Amino acid sequence: MKIVVDAMGGDYAPDVVIKGAVSAVNEYDVEVILVGEEQKIKPLLKREKYDPARISVVHAPETIGMSESAASSVRKKRNSSIVLGINLVEEGKADAFFSAGNTGAVVCAATLSLRMLPGVERPGIAIVIPSLKGFSLMIDVGANIDPKPVQLLHYGIMGAVYCKHILNKPNPTVGLLNIGEEETKGTEFMKETHELLSSSKLNFTGNVEGKDLYSGKCDIIISDGFVGNIALKATESTADALKNFLKKNIKKSPLAILGFLFMMGTFRKLKKSMDYSEYGGAPLLGVNGVVIIGHGRSNIKAIKNAIRVAKEEVERQFNEKLLEAISKK
Amino acid sequence: MKIVVDAMGGDYAPDVVIKGAVSAVNEYDVEVILVGEEQKIKPLLKREKYDPARISVVHAPETIGMSESAASSVRKKRNSSIVLGINLVEEGKADAFFSAGNTGAVVCAATLSLRMLPGVERPGIAIVIPSLKGFSLMIDVGANIDPKPVQLLHYGIMGAVYCKHILNKPNPTVGLLNIGEEETKGTEFMKETHELLSSSKLNFTGNVEGKDLYSGKCDIIISDGFVGNIALKATESTADALKNFLKKNIKKSPLAILGFLFMMGTFRKLKKSMDYSEYGGAPLLGVNGVVIIGHGRSNIKAIKNAIRVAKEEVERQFNEKLLEAISKK
Repeated sequence: MKIVVDAMGGDYAPDVVIKGAVSAVNEYDVEVILVGEEQKIKPLLKREKYDPARISVVHAPETIGMSESAASSVRKKRNSSIVLGINLVEEGKADAFFSAGNTGAVVCAATLSLRMLPGVERPGIAIVIPSLKGFSLMIDVGANIDPKPVQLLHYGIMGAVYCKHILNKPNPTVGLLNIGEEETKGTEFMKETHELLSSSKLNFTGNVEGKDLYSGKCDIIISDGFVGNIALKATESTADALKNFLKKNIKKSPLAILGFLFMMGTFRKLKKSMDYSEYGGAPLLGVNGVVIIGHGRSNIKAIKNAIRVAKEEVERQFNEKLLEAISKK
Repeated sequence: MKIVVDAMGGDYAPDVVIKGAVSAVNEYDVEVILVGEEQKIKPLLKREKYDPARISVVHAPETIGMSESAASSVRKKRNSSIVLGINLVEEGKADAFFSAGNTGAVVCAATLSLRMLPGVERPGIAIVIPSLKGFSLMIDVGANIDPKPVQLLHYGIMGAVYCKHILNKPNPTVGLLNIGEEETKGTEFMKETHELLSSSKLNFTGNVEGKDLYSGKCDIIISDGFVGNIALKATESTADALKNFLKKNIKKSPLAILGFLFMMGTFRKLKKSMDYSEYGGAPLLGVNGVVIIGHGRSNIKAIKNAIRVAKEEVERQFNEKLLEAISKK
């Protein structure tokens, strides 16, 4: 199996991406095609130990920056690592694509080049989030910021197929992220979506609120991409603020420093349970191909795990199963 | 000055509300009118120590429950504590209204009875949130879930007047909660709002993302009420999940328990800095009267502080200053 990896994507690219790819081919039964600026990639690759038959490089002279406008950069930079990389999947030369680069550009290039699966209108980014009961899948967290109700229904179906076949959670419960639990709550858009979900075959348990995000109240949390993105990042902000506060204040008291040392094991466990790099990447569901998106801050482990997630999605024929579910909806 | 307090509103009403009101009249130069079921309020009041000239009771035979539909409950329950209480302000018999009850019903009753200030289209709930640099004001967190761009501009103006005259922060910076920093990011609605804010007299510093919520990047965070509500509650969920995780795991290790005891002071400080009860209540800005909304979980201190916030808004003639600012926009 061949996974295309955008060597130029992410805050620590290309170095960390290359190390992650090497780590993946050494651990899993995959081949990686690194796409990006050859003159930057090759010297870095030389330092690593791996079976050379397992990693190849495809030169991409252009790179789309993290903050470039998605649509116009994809249109203009036809020779960028993102566009060329996704084209390799479209041409059947590879099985999946991964990037920790500009999310908007990946969504745009994937939609244009691979197109949507028949029956699906818009792609959605699904992300595994830790919860008090294990984990939940949140979809969409930013691919589609102005969705229609039927597109949120599709997210529910895609999420359910993903839960069943990739996360080994059959018959997952589905909740709709809204401002109140009652079905009469929220905008007209939300009420319409609630109705669609209620009359679907999904195991829909009703609205969930922002306060339920990490409670594990349901297995799949469906949201509009705009709201999902802000909610997800707001939690990042909260965790960062709490960490900063503790850091600053622990330093002020020798007793607290001692206490912190005694609690190290617990804090480490907490860090591990919140560590997105364990899950690696977020699948872009709904496009006709396997595409995984990584956090800009992805480290070596996150890159490696994202490649594993791509591999599993290909092996378990996720898109074939999704097509089947969508056609039966 | 007379503040009307909804004795029936909040998860711990009427007991905690009454205690909070007593605490307020004993500490501040205010009078309180408790509105609610007389037969429940009077026996509880008897147990408290206060100057009887400072607290009066107005009987309201009906109560709007926390999860009742806002519009229909306000229409049907004309004799509820919320409707009767706000009417006292409208009739000039009191200076301000506070409730920790059904937020939607308070917004609806206040809008219908007090009406909007001339020049303001919709009310917004403003909330003070702690940040790494002190605090920020977030508006709107749920009064108006389907706003127009001009209404978000009004929120900016209202927030700026509130910052200047109530929070003592002149010329506050204003940010728009969006999914990316660049002005081209977000929905058409967001782009239009960005343009309006850019060409206003506000000290607008551009978009802020969910990840900036607690960073103190700007003094005022403007958001659509739907998004603001979910973002705010998502942070509550994060903090609760972190607390639960620590609690569960500390118990498993004697060393961690000891460490926790040594860190008590630091955790207490953290709790205090995050404690919404310090700020008391969230003002409903834009209506022609002073209305403060409390968190359902409000404790005695939160009720007392909310009454103080109401008092300050009246004393500092917030609405007069807002009218002036709106007319000059």
